[in-house]
Amino acid sequence: MRDAQPVTVLGIDPGTAVTGYGVVRKEGHNPLALVECGVIRTRPRDDLARRLLEIHEGVLELIRRHKPTVLAIEDIFYARNVRTTVVLGHARGAILLAAAQAGLEIHEYPPAEIKKAVAGTGAATKLQIQFMVTRLLRLKSAPQPSDAADGVAAALAWALMPDLPKIEPIRLRTGL
Amino acid sequence: MRDAQPVTVLGIDPGTAVTGYGVVRKEGHNPLALVECGVIRTRPRDDLARRLLEIHEGVLELIRRHKPTVLAIEDIFYARNVRTTVVLGHARGAILLAAAQAGLEIHEYPPAEIKKAVAGTGAATKLQIQFMVTRLLRLKSAPQPSDAADGVAAALAWALMPDLPKIEPIRLRTGL
Repeated sequence: MRDAQPVTVLGIDPGTAVTGYGVVRKEGHNPLALVECGVIRTRPRDDLARRLLEIHEGVLELIRRHKPTVLAIEDIFYARNVRTTVVLGHARGAILLAAAQAGLEIHEYPPAEIKKAVAGTGAATKLQIQFMVTRLLRLKSAPQPSDAADGVAAALAWALMPDLPKIEPIRLRTGL
Repeated sequence: MRDAQPVTVLGIDPGTAVTGYGVVRKEGHNPLALVECGVIRTRPRDDLARRLLEIHEGVLELIRRHKPTVLAIEDIFYARNVRTTVVLGHARGAILLAAAQAGLEIHEYPPAEIKKAVAGTGAATKLQIQFMVTRLLRLKSAPQPSDAADGVAAALAWALMPDLPKIEPIRLRTGL
């Protein structure tokens, strides 16, 4: 089904200081196309609530502008410093909220799964990912900064994953 | 300054499944008054984004209804299970975002600091906190469930903390 109509996917690599994003368009069997990529930066001196406000507003603005129907977001990598991970959870909360408010279909991928989808191995290096992102989207150079490339990689992960058959939930006809 | 005018403070004990809240009114040297307390519950079977949406909307609704100017929120207690703590970070993100969107002044307190402000010791038990919340607000019984009492305790922590002198940041007159 998802090959039939063009789909715009917003990929996000969440961060409190720098949130990378990539907007990718998938249309039938055409090559995947990069619509836009970049980063949402927040000021380290601002308090957390202010930064969450900027991340949330930045994501909503991207959704308004490109009207994606899918959000592909990197899941949390638990091996980092716990405090950093928890603060990152706040940023992810603001991003997931924006996507839910806009009614996007949400897909979360562990970092290794994104690497595997894009570069064939979950152990791919940052450079390998940048190389594959550049190649798959036929760009002249890798998206900069690397956080933007990571956002694009999340979008590509969704676009490249095989369609799994979906079982529709059974709805009882209750007359409601 | 904050004793001069009545202030409504929204206290929150964040949770993914159950977020407790208490709205407390402080007016001069009158006894503190409980305006409302309760919980925002989300369904464990719903996905995280849906639950964040409900927490965010629930907090915004409380703000619309009671027009608090201050949010007092429990900080994260890091000793718990890391995954739980990170998911809790998402919920806190949605709550802080709602407060920032509504322009509330935000105060975050570690659990021990709330206990100390309300019951005199950071090692107070849940029962001691419930007892002190009941007494301080002259209620007939402790707020139920205990998450609601924890939300009220956060609001009380703000209301009971001594006013610390504030040093206004020096603003350079640049003509901007």
